[in-house]
Order: sequence, then structure tokens, then C-alpha cells
Amino acid sequence: MQDRQMIIVMERNATAEQVRNVERRLTEMGFRTHLSQGVERTIIGAIGDRNSVAMGALEVLSGVERVVPILQPFKLASREFQPHNTVVKVGQAEFGSGRLQVIAGPCAVESREKYLEVARIVADLGATLLRGGAFKPRTSPYSFQGLEEEGLEILAEARQVTGLPVVSEVVDPRLVPVVAEYVDVLQIGARNMQNFFLLREVGKSSRPVILKRGPSATIEEWIMAAEYIISSGNPRVILCERGIRTFETYTRNTLDLSAVPVVKELTHLPIVVDPSHGTGKWRLVEPMSLAAVAAGCDGLMIEVHQNPAEALSDGPQSLNPVNFAHLMRSLARLTRALRDEERAEAAGARGW
Amino acid sequence: MQDRQMIIVMERNATAEQVRNVERRLTEMGFRTHLSQGVERTIIGAIGDRNSVAMGALEVLSGVERVVPILQPFKLASREFQPHNTVVKVGQAEFGSGRLQVIAGPCAVESREKYLEVARIVADLGATLLRGGAFKPRTSPYSFQGLEEEGLEILAEARQVTGLPVVSEVVDPRLVPVVAEYVDVLQIGARNMQNFFLLREVGKSSRPVILKRGPSATIEEWIMAAEYIISSGNPRVILCERGIRTFETYTRNTLDLSAVPVVKELTHLPIVVDPSHGTGKWRLVEPMSLAAVAAGCDGLMIEVHQNPAEALSDGPQSLNPVNFAHLMRSLARLTRALRDEERAEAAGARGW
Amino acid sequence: MQDRQMIIVMERNATAEQVRNVERRLTEMGFRTHLSQGVERTIIGAIGDRNSVAMGALEVLSGVERVVPILQPFKLASREFQPHNTVVKVGQAEFGSGRLQVIAGPCAVESREKYLEVARIVADLGATLLRGGAFKPRTSPYSFQGLEEEGLEILAEARQVTGLPVVSEVVDPRLVPVVAEYVDVLQIGARNMQNFFLLREVGKSSRPVILKRGPSATIEEWIMAAEYIISSGNPRVILCERGIRTFETYTRNTLDLSAVPVVKELTHLPIVVDPSHGTGKWRLVEPMSLAAVAAGCDGLMIEVHQNPAEALSDGPQSLNPVNFAHLMRSLARLTRALRDEERAEAAGARGW
Amino acid sequence: MQDRQMIIVMERNATAEQVRNVERRLTEMGFRTHLSQGVERTIIGAIGDRNSVAMGALEVLSGVERVVPILQPFKLASREFQPHNTVVKVGQAEFGSGRLQVIAGPCAVESREKYLEVARIVADLGATLLRGGAFKPRTSPYSFQGLEEEGLEILAEARQVTGLPVVSEVVDPRLVPVVAEYVDVLQIGARNMQNFFLLREVGKSSRPVILKRGPSATIEEWIMAAEYIISSGNPRVILCERGIRTFETYTRNTLDLSAVPVVKELTHLPIVVDPSHGTGKWRLVEPMSLAAVAAGCDGLMIEVHQNPAEALSDGPQSLNPVNFAHLMRSLARLTRALRDEERAEAAGARGW
Repeated sequence: MQDRQMIIVMERNATAEQVRNVERRLTEMGFRTHLSQGVERTIIGAIGDRNSVAMGALEVLSGVERVVPILQPFKLASREFQPHNTVVKVGQAEFGSGRLQVIAGPCAVESREKYLEVARIVADLGATLLRGGAFKPRTSPYSFQGLEEEGLEILAEARQVTGLPVVSEVVDPRLVPVVAEYVDVLQIGARNMQNFFLLREVGKSSRPVILKRGPSATIEEWIMAAEYIISSGNPRVILCERGIRTFETYTRNTLDLSAVPVVKELTHLPIVVDPSHGTGKWRLVEPMSLAAVAAGCDGLMIEVHQNPAEALSDGPQSLNPVNFAHLMRSLARLTRALRDEERAEAAGARGW
Repeated sequence: MQDRQMIIVMERNATAEQVRNVERRLTEMGFRTHLSQGVERTIIGAIGDRNSVAMGALEVLSGVERVVPILQPFKLASREFQPHNTVVKVGQAEFGSGRLQVIAGPCAVESREKYLEVARIVADLGATLLRGGAFKPRTSPYSFQGLEEEGLEILAEARQVTGLPVVSEVVDPRLVPVVAEYVDVLQIGARNMQNFFLLREVGKSSRPVILKRGPSATIEEWIMAAEYIISSGNPRVILCERGIRTFETYTRNTLDLSAVPVVKELTHLPIVVDPSHGTGKWRLVEPMSLAAVAAGCDGLMIEVHQNPAEALSDGPQSLNPVNFAHLMRSLARLTRALRDEERAEAAGARGW
Repeated sequence: MQDRQMIIVMERNATAEQVRNVERRLTEMGFRTHLSQGVERTIIGAIGDRNSVAMGALEVLSGVERVVPILQPFKLASREFQPHNTVVKVGQAEFGSGRLQVIAGPCAVESREKYLEVARIVADLGATLLRGGAFKPRTSPYSFQGLEEEGLEILAEARQVTGLPVVSEVVDPRLVPVVAEYVDVLQIGARNMQNFFLLREVGKSSRPVILKRGPSATIEEWIMAAEYIISSGNPRVILCERGIRTFETYTRNTLDLSAVPVVKELTHLPIVVDPSHGTGKWRLVEPMSLAAVAAGCDGLMIEVHQNPAEALSDGPQSLNPVNFAHLMRSLARLTRALRDEERAEAAGARGW
Repeated sequence: MQDRQMIIVMERNATAEQVRNVERRLTEMGFRTHLSQGVERTIIGAIGDRNSVAMGALEVLSGVERVVPILQPFKLASREFQPHNTVVKVGQAEFGSGRLQVIAGPCAVESREKYLEVARIVADLGATLLRGGAFKPRTSPYSFQGLEEEGLEILAEARQVTGLPVVSEVVDPRLVPVVAEYVDVLQIGARNMQNFFLLREVGKSSRPVILKRGPSATIEEWIMAAEYIISSGNPRVILCERGIRTFETYTRNTLDLSAVPVVKELTHLPIVVDPSHGTGKWRLVEPMSLAAVAAGCDGLMIEVHQNPAEALSDGPQSLNPVNFAHLMRSLARLTRALRDEERAEAAGARGW
């Protein structure tokens, strides 16, 4: 299939011999070429196969200024490939179908009693999935690293108690089977977004995967990470925007809400937003949750702790139950308003 | 007034002599000091005057590891200084009073006919102020640089025709009087956010000022720029988030909507959002406008052109009239919903 | 002159009608077009004139995915336009001729006595130009703002005393004539790199200009700023790398030394490096100065103060006289070694 | 051991009750506290234990504005803990002893014949270690992923043929034993810098580890990753600066050479620089290599391919043998000159 297309821009003083050499090399690589001669630059268009050798290598041929790829590097994740939305179902929850999902719970599972207590609280307040870390990737080796398998058992118990599906992070390819045994949704953390061996391993699992965006990943690289999982056999991928690293230090990360409509345009995958990590400050969680929903996301991931001042991790960005209740009420009103809007839209003329 | 407070952290092996030397120097600079001796570090607390000499200089004293400022560097702009919201009135429009303002119009004034046409269109569709550039700062000296004073005259005519106040950028301290003569609101562009001589000049004007955030400015630096204007005598400052520069290239800038609640917390100034420059892509303008409003902004700044494909600048991010009409309808529904929410809020218990 | 060349990539499902429409529009804009039909994308090549209307506008035509410019946006500054190095002479100093220039002095002129003292010190130690700020752009309106015209007079006196040319920043278009009267080289600060009205004003001056890179400016935008100055009539531009803003906070900025060989490749202009602002820490100034010279820069800009702990600005990044003397000795050995290298190079075979 | 020290800054209007509450909580957490009352802010100093609970959590106590840590978060890697340089020996090569090490070879092992050929070439030209990827983390699942274990066998053969130690990346905790069996130095790639389970696994190995800096990692986070390895039992860590992600797109990454002297100041670990990934362009490899050495690094990591235009990965940044030979000659002259400088230094007075 001829699905690679690129433009080779020659240097200003490239000789006819250099141009011929590039064309020859392209032909060897299985590309059809086309020459376009400007006053200042000669351009070679090339059409070939995705599996042909690395096109970057062409940049070192003498006389070549740069190589411009024309097509997106991802395929299975792209909306061109699949025009309709992927809907990922987990128990009663559906990501991508238009109903907002709220995944809530503490950063880490700290003890059985505390986790079951907070799980009941968020379930009562309307959360549709539970979250909780059993294996914690921490910046410092001296920080709390999670309850590990014991934490997974507690998560499974919380699911039974509340009836809600549970999400937990998997950090090591060796742990995929055990985590998948206990939880409903596997989460790939931001720092593992390009841990390709882990991506392939969750790609072989039958569990849906929440794929967090890496702190320095472009949207394209993030979608490529989803492509790894899908091309390994698992199409149930949910993207999660959680902020990127920028020069601004007032917030922990810079929550890139533009990513929501961009992902909707480029891919068919559902997308959720994590304003807790995205801002690092609990006071910003409610306004940014509302903003994320207005931008069109399919769900939210919210850190809630019954007593944030005693949390073993991420206390400053966790809501307490009172604030989470307030958020849920605000979300209910906003989604109601946006649904009305859609209905009005459907009834009237469509602008874009 | 004793309004500067800082902590000096000494190096691990700092000698008693070095500590005494820092204390002596602080006393000379008019600070009262307080010593706190840890096992690994000695810390000196100091309280003094904002006008005492540069505290950064203390970092070079021998034995000093670093200096930690305790207080925010801005004052007049801070919510601590003035707890209630500043409301900036321009004609009928009020920024900061709770009603959403929509500033709309083309990037540049291209001709009298075209400007009056688009001004009437956006006014009919509900815009509350007009925008249009007469002096254009352009990355390339070969791009269209604006109609200059002729453009200002056209803006003034558009105000008469539509009854709406007009906003236009001022790029040179010499031009402040002439621009202020023709337009209602002076705009400081992102690239001039730290053009301190221009800030002081608009600080002497009686016109309100929209101060765009610089592409690499932290929120604190941006508020400091507002402090320049206010301390020069002009308290009518409206901040404008328009995206920051990050590694992501799919969007022209990364619109930092977290800045909206952060600015509301740190200052008493109104804030508007410019999703046109903030994303660079017209398809993203509506979702990001809705998100900005949900995050709590006081207004939007939207580029609209009757025929974006023929715009002399910023075509790709301009809405055409049909899309602008669609945006205005969506905004109307959203703000109605959010107002209902506030009313419900006021009636019920308050969580945070 | 046909010096604009671009590629229009159509969307996957673009219709033949949409393609014809883009071709028609290009023809109206004065471009010759060429069609290239891939399996997945149709591409239109276009060759035209730099002064034809904004090509970005094409992106909004229906069916267009994106527009790829083929040529660099700058011309007069480019090495394609002028293959040999520009050498900027100021008194005895030559930038771009192969001899390293060292511009030294305090951040700000603080008083006549102090400035003349430090000027004599750095001159004795081998500096080839003096620096000192008379008009200071400061983040806070409450910081020392410079001695203004009195500072210029002191600089002129220091030139007479030492025989060295002096460099000082100009921050306001209105001040260009007075600063140019007193000093030998005008400096455009990082925050004014895209203050286009100021660039045009120094472009009309006969003084050489040191153009600092903006903290969030790409190399291309920086060269475009030089293009503004050159196209206004002043070809004597010296670029100055002084660090860019990134997420790293340990250093004040991230000194981008790759910019040195990149600027040498893309332009014919000399380039100097400012490791004082580039790092913000005096301990890093010597290693980064040596690195900058090894990377191929034409000069250095070094902040020196007789007593950094009492400096009114930038104390933490200023060298004291002892450390500056040490730096000058290290530089002398390094440049000697690099000259030997060049000589050996000239005698032997050349690899690249 | 009392090795945690911090400052709690209270909000401006914090009540006496809130202050007492924070003090009480700190005491419960095992901290000794000290109160310092300014006019605008009350500050609480606290000294306690590294293993006490997460201090971030204090930020959510009512009345607290922020928490300022006073001590560095790393210990075993810090120069405070071990003042003398760690020297890592691998065969004949010593990292950290003052002699420059050059690790050279292709990005990926592509075939036995090609690898042995290029290994002999770089060995003849003076490289002191070989590099080559057997397991390749690639952005796209459709790119060449390496020869895997067959690649490791080829690397082992190349060591026998050339007598040089070999370096190869390990990407999966499960693969640490097999990679460690074949190669002399384990490399942790940039994208795995915070793959903490992999860090712990190489921490249990007896092989030295080259730890690349993550593209969005601060220097502090990078040193914390080294702390993971050392605290797991492996003190033989070599840091590798390879560029960070910034807004500049002309280079693949922004090589942060300031990291070299900063790492030397904060830690006792050796540091090497990878200008191939750091710039992404072979033309920049030589100037940036020289700059890195002038900045004080202990070694370089250089991609070399016998025919970069045919490389399966990273062709554009690979040197061909002629250019690598040129680089090695330039490095020889530079290191000779810098050694002379040190000798002169040792003989004369020392400025800093």
C-alpha cells in the first residue's frame, strides 16, 4: 500500500548530479518520485511505502536541505482510518458515548479502612469509577512507594463494595498480568508514556487502558503511543491529558485543554482530563474541571482524599469530600446545560 | 513600612564568621534578622523594607546557598492589597462585573469598506467591543504592517456606526497619545509585555489598558507588568491570556486556562482570554472559548474576518461570520447555565 | 523575483473541486502551481513572489490540510544571500574576523566613581569593549531603573579614560539618538527583540547593534529581527545568545550554545554569547565562556562588578575582578589552542 | 537523623489558631518548630526527619500559603555526602578521572558485518568505548526495533575484536540480566529516566550505568533518578546530558551544557555529553563536542555510521568515518590545550 508521502527540499546550490542521486536513492527505496524546479529550490516529491527504510536518513544525502513528511505517522488511531468514535465500555461506564465519566479516589491506596471509606464517599457523591495507586512511581526513592499487591486486593474489595469499576496504574511489564487480574482499567502513567515495552504488554491485555500524556510529549507522540497499544492488539485506549511541562511554575504542570478538541479531530479515541495533576493545586481543580468539560472531554480523573493534610502523596492537589461534592453539583449543572445546547443545536442550523 | 521578608539559607559548611557577616550586611541594609540553626543548615530570617537594595546581591556573600523571598513582588495589583474585584467600564461594557464581554473583529484594519462591514456584522451578532489593528507588529519586515493613522480613523468611524467601544494595539511610546485619541481601550501586545517604557506611557493615559501575557512570561511577571501600569497612575488594567510558548507545535501557542483562576486568586483585576492567538486554528476557537468561560474569565477576544482566506494576517485563526454566529449562540447558552448555577449556589450551602 | 515557494497539502478527502479552487486562488495571487497526486493526499506546489499576500490565509480554504513554506523567511541576513562573513568594526575591535572580543563591565552604571574604577580594572585585564546599563528595563517598577542620561555621560568618560568602545542598551525608540550620541554600540535587550518599532529606529542609526535573542524566540525569529534592522538600512548587526526560557529553574535561563554554529550556518552575521544572563550564576560563567568559544562564537559579554554583593542589579551573576582575571587567562590559553588547531587544519586535509 | 528542614509560610490573614494548628501538626509529625512573626507573614521553621510523612500535605492545612524545602532531596549522589569525585572504571576506561572518554558507534546494531566494520573504524580512530542499540525504543511501532538478543551477541563479538568495552541500552526490567551478561555498561535511555522499576533493577546489577537525562527532567529530578540506582546498591552511575525539550525546533533537542558544571557542583558523579541526540544534526556534533569538553565533561557519546544515508535510525545525526576522524583530531588538540591550562593553573595562583 502506497501510504508514505514526502517532499525532499534540495539546498539552494544543489547540483543536477546531487538531485539525480537523491532520485536514484528514492527509487531504490521503492518510491516513485516527481521533480519540481523553483528558481531558488528544487523539490522532489516521493510516494512510497510505510515500511520502506527510515526517511530521515535521506537528510544526510549531499545537497539535501530537509525532508518534509506529508502524512501523519499514525494510522490505527486516526480518524481518517476510523471516522466514528470509539466507545470504551467498562461495567456501566462508557467513555466516548457522550456521558461524562468521573474517575475519583486518592492518589495512593494507603490502608484498607481509609480506602474503603473514601471509595464509599465518592461513590455516594456520583463518581462512576474509582482510582487508587497500588504501585507508585515516585520522584524520590525515599517517598512512600505504595502497598503493591495488597493495594490491588483492597481495590478489588472496593469494587465489590461500591459496584464501581476500578482503575490503577501499571508500572512494570512484569506486573501487567497481576494488575489486570485485580482491576478493570490499566493506567499508563505520564512518565511511562514512551515505555514501549510496557505499551506492548498492555496491548496484549484484554483490559481497557488509560494512557496519560507524557509531560514533554507532543500530541502526535502521544497518539503514536496509543498506536503502539492498538497495533499490539488492544483497541480500547482512553487518552488522558494531565498537563505538560512548561516554564510556568505556579502550577505543577500546564494543563493543555486545547488537546481535547485536537485529539477529537485527529483520532477516534475518547479523552479524559486530570486537573489534579494538571494543576497541582486543589483550588484550581473545580474551575479546570468545568473548563475541560466545556472543551468537550469524555471524562475527568479527580484526586479525592478524606483528609488531604494527611495524604501520603499528592495532598496539595486532592479535594476533600466537601469540595468534591461541590464539584459534582457544578458538573451536573454544566453537563445539563451543554446537553440542552446540543439538543438546541440539533434542532437548528449547524454552523461548523 | 516593613514589607519585605526573606530567608537566607547558608551552605552546609558555612562558618560562624560567614553567618555573622551575612547578619551584619542585612543589618546595614536595614533588615531585622533572626537566626535558626538546623543540623545541616543555618537559616537567617530577615524582615525589612521593599526599597532596601537588591536582595539577590546577598547570594554572592560567601557561605550563602540561596535567598528565598517570602512575599509576592507585586502590591497594587494584588488581592491582598485590594480584596474586591476591579470593574473596568468602557461605554456600556463592564469587565469584572460578572457579565461576559466579547471583543471581536479582524486582526488588522485592511480597508474602510471591509472594516465597517465586519464591524456591523459582529455588532449585529452580539459583540460588545470591536477590535482591529492599525499598527501591526509583524515577525517579518516584508509582511503587511497596518494602515497606521488611517486605520485609527476607520476604527473611530466604526465606533460611531456601531455604538461599540473599540480596542487597538499601541506599539510605540510615541504613539500613545494619538492612539488614545481615537480608541477607547489601549492594547499592549504580547511581545511588548515587558516593554517597560511603553507600560509607563500607557500608565499615564486615562484609557483602560488590555495587557496581553508575553509568550514566555510567568503569571507573576505578567502581574508585575500590570503593577508598572498601575503604579504609573492608571488602575484600569485588564489582563489577557493568549497562550504561552511551549514545545507543542500543533497549536500556535498553548492556551494556559489555569491562568484564569490563578489571576482571580492573586489579583483583583479582570481577565479576558484570546483563543484565536492562543490556538492559531479557527476550529479550536469555539471549544476553547467555552472552556475559558467555564474557567471563569470576564471576556473573550475573538478574531473575525468576513473572508478569512483573504485576510492579510492571521487568516487561519479567524472565524467567518457563520462560525462567529454559532459561537455567540453557544456562549449565550453556556453563560445562562453558569448564571443559573451561581444562583443555585447562592441559595444553597457553599463548599469552598 | 520569484522567491517564494510553498507546498499546499490537501485533506485526505478533498474533492477535485476543492483542489481546483485552491489552484485558482493561487493563480490569482500570482503563483505558478503544480499538482502531485498521491494515493492518500494531493499536493500542490506553488512558486511566486515574496510580496504576494499572506500565504497562511490559504490554510482556511476548504479542503486544505496545511501549507508548508519551502524557503527561509529571511533574506538579507542569510548566508545564501551573502556567503562571506560580515565583519563589524568598532574602534580597534572586530567582530567576525576570528579574534575573540570580550565586552565586560557591570550590569548597570551605578555611580561615576564606581563605574570608572571597574572600567579601568576590566580594561587592564584585557577586555576589548566596555558595557554598562544607563536605562535599565527591570521586572519590578520598584527596582533601580538606571542613571539614565547621566549614566551615558559616565560611559563616554570611561571610553576616554580606557580607550575602549562602549556598549549600552537602548529601550525606547525616542532615546535612540541620545544613546547613539554617547555610545559606540547600541544594544537591543532580550525583551525588546520583537519591539519592531525600536528595531526600525536602530536600523536608521549608523551605530552597530548588538541584538540579544528573546527568551522565547526561535533562532529563525531572532534572525528575522536582524532582518528588520538590516532592511531598515543598518547592516552592522551582531547577534547575542543569552539563554532561552525553559522548564529548568536551576539556571536563570538555558544557554543555547547550539545557536552559535546554527547562526554561523544560516547567516553571515557575527555572534557573541552572554553567559552571565545565560546562567544567572557567576560560578557557571567561566565554564560556559570556554564552551561558547569552543563552539565558535566571536565574542563574549561578561558582567563584572568590583563588589557583586553590593551590586544594584544582577549581583549573583557578576564576576568579581579576581574571577574575571582568571577567566581572561583561561580564555587566552583556549583561543591560543584553537588557533593552533586552525593552523594545523589549514595545513592538513579538511573533513567537513 | 534530623535531615529534613523546611519553612512554612502562612497566609497574610492566618489566625493565631491556624498557626497553632500547623505547629501542632508538625510536632505530631516529629518536627521541632520555630515561629517567626513578620508584619505581613508568619513563618514557621521546622526541623525533622527525612522519613516523616509527605511535607507537601502541609500545604492543605488551613492558613498555609506554601511550604519551602530547605535541603536538597538527594543524598547519596550529592557532593555534600561525598566530596571527592566518583571514578567509574570500565576495562581501561575511567570516567571521572580527568581523561576524556569517547563512546562511539551507530545508533542501532543493524547487522553483524556492518557493526564489526564500524566498530573497527571507530576503534582505530581512537574511540575508547563502543555503543550500539540492540533493543530500540522507537516513537513509531512501525520503525526498526532492533536485532534484540542477536544484537547483543554482535556487541560481545565487537568487544573481542576491538578490545573496547561496549555500552547498550536496557529498556525493560526483565532484560537487565541478559543485557548485563553481554555488555559492559548498561544505558538507561532518556525516556526511561523515571522508569523507577527499571532504575531499581539496574541498581541491583554490578554493571556501571549510563543514565541519560529525560527530555523534560530538571537537573534535580535527574540526580534523584541516580539516587534511585545508588540507593538500590549500585554506586557506579555516569550521568549523560543529551538535550532537553524546548520550543526551539531547529535542533532536535536543546543541549543544556550548563548541566555539566552544575552536575559537577551538586554531585560527585561523572558526566558525559551526547551531542548527536542533543542536536539531531551531524554538522553540529563537532562544535558541540568541543564546547562540551571545554565546559568540563568527562566523556562524549557520538553516533557514527559508515553510511549515514542508509542508517535504519538517526542517520541525520550520525557522523561518517571521515567526519569522526576530524572530530577526534580536534578533540586531541583541545584536550591537550586544556591539560596545559590545568598545569599552568596548578603552578600559579587559583582564583576560584
